[in-house]
Amino acid sequence: MPHTSARDRIRLASLREKIVSAEEAASHIHDGMVVGMSGFTRAGEAKAVPLALAARARTHPLKISLITGASLGNDLDKQLAEAHVLARRMPFQSDPALRRAINAGEVMFVDQHLSETVEHLRTRQLGPIDVAVVEAVGITADGGIIPTTSVGNSASFAILAEKVIVELNVSQPLALEGLHDIYIPTRRPFREPIPVVGPDSRVGLPFIPVPPEKIAAIVITDRGDSPSNAMPADAETAAIAGHLMGFLEGEVAAGRLTERLLPLQAGIGTIANAVMMGFIDSPFRDLTMYSEVLQDSTFDLFDAGKLNFASGSSITLSQPKAEAVMADITRYKPRLVLRPQEVSNHPEIIRRLGIIAINTALEFDIYGNVNSTHVNGTHMMNGIGGSGDFARNAYLSVFVTKSTAKGGALSSVVPMASHVDHTEHDVDVVVTEIGLADLRELAPRERAREIIANCVHPLYREALSDYVERATARGGHTPHILEEALSWHIRARDGGRMVEPLHLAATA
Amino acid sequence: MPHTSARDRIRLASLREKIVSAEEAASHIHDGMVVGMSGFTRAGEAKAVPLALAARARTHPLKISLITGASLGNDLDKQLAEAHVLARRMPFQSDPALRRAINAGEVMFVDQHLSETVEHLRTRQLGPIDVAVVEAVGITADGGIIPTTSVGNSASFAILAEKVIVELNVSQPLALEGLHDIYIPTRRPFREPIPVVGPDSRVGLPFIPVPPEKIAAIVITDRGDSPSNAMPADAETAAIAGHLMGFLEGEVAAGRLTERLLPLQAGIGTIANAVMMGFIDSPFRDLTMYSEVLQDSTFDLFDAGKLNFASGSSITLSQPKAEAVMADITRYKPRLVLRPQEVSNHPEIIRRLGIIAINTALEFDIYGNVNSTHVNGTHMMNGIGGSGDFARNAYLSVFVTKSTAKGGALSSVVPMASHVDHTEHDVDVVVTEIGLADLRELAPRERAREIIANCVHPLYREALSDYVERATARGGHTPHILEEALSWHIRARDGGRMVEPLHLAATA
Ligand SMILES: CC(C)(COP(=O)(O)OP(=O)(O)OC[C@H]1O[C@@H](n2cnc3c(N)ncnc32)[C@H](O)[C@@H]1OP(=O)(O)O)[C@@H](O)C(=O)NCCC(=O)NCCS
Ligand SMILES: CC(C)(COP(=O)(O)OP(=O)(O)OC[C@H]1O[C@@H](n2cnc3c(N)ncnc32)[C@H](O)[C@@H]1OP(=O)(O)O)[C@@H](O)C(=O)NCCC(=O)NCCS
Repeated sequence: MPHTSARDRIRLASLREKIVSAEEAASHIHDGMVVGMSGFTRAGEAKAVPLALAARARTHPLKISLITGASLGNDLDKQLAEAHVLARRMPFQSDPALRRAINAGEVMFVDQHLSETVEHLRTRQLGPIDVAVVEAVGITADGGIIPTTSVGNSASFAILAEKVIVELNVSQPLALEGLHDIYIPTRRPFREPIPVVGPDSRVGLPFIPVPPEKIAAIVITDRGDSPSNAMPADAETAAIAGHLMGFLEGEVAAGRLTERLLPLQAGIGTIANAVMMGFIDSPFRDLTMYSEVLQDSTFDLFDAGKLNFASGSSITLSQPKAEAVMADITRYKPRLVLRPQEVSNHPEIIRRLGIIAINTALEFDIYGNVNSTHVNGTHMMNGIGGSGDFARNAYLSVFVTKSTAKGGALSSVVPMASHVDHTEHDVDVVVTEIGLADLRELAPRERAREIIANCVHPLYREALSDYVERATARGGHTPHILEEALSWHIRARDGGRMVEPLHLAATA
Repeated sequence: MPHTSARDRIRLASLREKIVSAEEAASHIHDGMVVGMSGFTRAGEAKAVPLALAARARTHPLKISLITGASLGNDLDKQLAEAHVLARRMPFQSDPALRRAINAGEVMFVDQHLSETVEHLRTRQLGPIDVAVVEAVGITADGGIIPTTSVGNSASFAILAEKVIVELNVSQPLALEGLHDIYIPTRRPFREPIPVVGPDSRVGLPFIPVPPEKIAAIVITDRGDSPSNAMPADAETAAIAGHLMGFLEGEVAAGRLTERLLPLQAGIGTIANAVMMGFIDSPFRDLTMYSEVLQDSTFDLFDAGKLNFASGSSITLSQPKAEAVMADITRYKPRLVLRPQEVSNHPEIIRRLGIIAINTALEFDIYGNVNSTHVNGTHMMNGIGGSGDFARNAYLSVFVTKSTAKGGALSSVVPMASHVDHTEHDVDVVVTEIGLADLRELAPRERAREIIANCVHPLYREALSDYVERATARGGHTPHILEEALSWHIRARDGGRMVEPLHLAATA
């Protein structure tokens, strides 16, 4: 049954002959190849071919370099890591098993700004791509590939690859057609301005143009995207949202923003999604998003009448939200666009539109340097993702996090960030459930004062004040006591707590 | 005599009445004001008014927030710092006396990406500017201000300020008229693409448009720019240039670049200038620059027939080169343009043109994180300048430095950068006189191997290898031994040497 409808989704009849099993399609992938696969933050990844590849590798070992848009769902990164298929992986992941392999040095993970990967491919600094595997809801009469719930890097993978494998996913509604806007920047030295002047600009094609003869195989699947693993909002994330709304209201009152604000970007994960929910009960209106991942909150904001338009590179939803949205996709479609991540994250567009960027930190330091990626300075969590594209080039760069982690054993505000992904120059505002620090136009010593007064959990406030006081007595633009700067992380690494309970008791 | 010619340079006759002494002009500046002054890397700064202000402050104390393009010449930052005029200073400086005041916590220094300052002013996150003081070679018949050797932030300062003071510098040739291209991005949410599509695009006006009634005073001066303090090339900088030329030749051979390369950006200071000289004897041709500061090397490259066009925000030259260039400016002018630093450093243009960015590091670590600003993690040198605008958004981001500093007592390659301005994601290639490491598409462990093998001075190689080996045994994506990571800096801070001579002797 799916098979019939599947054939109808291939409008270029000659391509119907290319339908094969996932195993047969996967046989185009050989040891040592560079493979580009669709998939961006658990949305729209090719599913059947990577699984077939992992299965084959268990008996016939092979290793590839795997490039995607961002993280994959359906445990694919786990399957591929455990089958030892991954020699190299880029530009983002978020899987516990793959993370273990990366931290053990088994997989070489190249953690890259999400706007950059296809620039490197196009200029042959990376690649070439041997095989691209792209999930689609259909193929046009010209052989154009219509993506599913993400665009990511799929368009450039397909355009630049030797061979293309299409996974036609019949569980995704064909009504997704028209959602995508495939624009590829022209080549240097003759590159033109990208004509996106608002979140709702449509500047490209609704499909990925590839010569049909490059399509080497088509696999029919009906496996859905994995549901989002973002947790629901809680009291702390609601408090973070509240502080941010208060700040933005102040910006409106000061005449720096209007009630429409500027286009919003929100990072991945639980906290960013929960913070976006805060806009529902805010005084802001006619909002727009120019973001990467559109999570549940985007659709809640549409339904609440707060959001006019959302541009992203993928849609990653919880199970109930996915069902509701997909059932009603034609209603949402006029207010949505999915773009290549090169465009959603393009420095040109981010600076032009004046994005308000809201990303999540693992930790930040008293001077506002942010660590988004490395636990205790050494162990990779997920990767920098698009946070650097946005934070550097935004109108306003906000970082949010809970003030503590691991049940209070760790402070998310530390003397010195154990790894820096976002320098103080890229961080305008930091928010925890305790409060918000507006760091704009402040020198480091002033930043420390604001952060300690507003963002630090009371358990750690005194210890940080004490540190900064003693450091400041030694002088410097950014005062530090180098022999103590990483001592909180050393204690966390060795004993699971940043500050000894004794010291906590004494100073709390 | 200068006075006569000065009056002729004010083509709007009614403005001639505004000519006053520097002291009288400076009297528009009051305690607590925000003042914007021209000046970018010792070029084109207002000279008479700040000196008059410093003189006045010695008897009648006052404090201002001073915003410029970048660093000032003529010891102005020293004079102003020593007269305690500076409460706040942004976005860049390079003066030893001011640096001392910053590191002592007397001046709040806001170290900012150079493309951002006027964005913050325009959106009223910063400011308003009470008084702008701008050096000019002349005033047009409509009251437009024709800048001198830099544009920097002068245009937006003048446009956004309450009052404008013009310093008409009669020692600068009126032939500079036509050199400048003043383009100001339109306001959000209706901002259009910036139409610069090549280094030679001219998209704005040759003067700064201001309503003549805003011009509160005109001061006539004839004090020249300070000569560049860049030192001549030496054997080490020549070796750095050689390694970089070899690498770029390889890129051409691999078909990734043509012999014209892509537009070049070069950072400030001795090393960047010296490295640019390396292009003279290179096989590359028809080069272009899209940079900030144009130093001696730019004109040497013109004279050598290597360079077709150079776009910058200022011209900062040694004394002999300044004399030669200014005497011959009409010959150079068709191949030169000076832009607002917002445009020279704009993320949009940098990514569009595909800049090859060459900036100088104070130090970098074995994973390729770069410190451009803080000695031993605490003490400010100059500031991040435009290096972050370029490094994040460039086609290729190169950092250069000598492998050691202070006569070999410090290694410029360290276990962990004591301060991070440029994360590993922003650093494609690092070069010292020892050699070059191509870090593109490498994971941190691989980066460490390349850097240690190619860039580290032999005195320190074994100690770094030993560190990375022991760190790697502990695991992690970016292996570190936190208790040792900053130990080299602690020793440098306390004893002036990074590694004990004993240890050096044992391992060298
Ligand atoms: C930082 C990031 C991991 C937070 O994710 P989140 O889902 O919002 O936040 P959580 O609080 O659930 O934290 C995730 C994990 O990090 C841990 N964590 C949080 N802060 C920590 C800290 N300071 N030290 C150690 N671990 C910490 C949490 O305990 C949790 O661990 P668990 O999975 O074992 O429970 C995530 O936002 C991320 O990967 N960011 C980088 C990429 C990015 O910013 N992309 C945005 C543009 S795409
Ligand atoms: C990094 C920077 C200071 C190097 O300047 P330079 O003139 O090329 O290099 P030099 O080797 O002469 O070094 C300048 C000083 O730093 C010191 N230095 C260099 N490396 C050092 C290190 N690892 N630790 C401590 N000091 C160091 C030098 O000894 C010298 O000190 P001195 O003035 O007391 O002699 C300079 O390029 C800079 O400020 N960069 C940041 C801004 C920027 O990149 N702008 C580019 C776009 S505008």
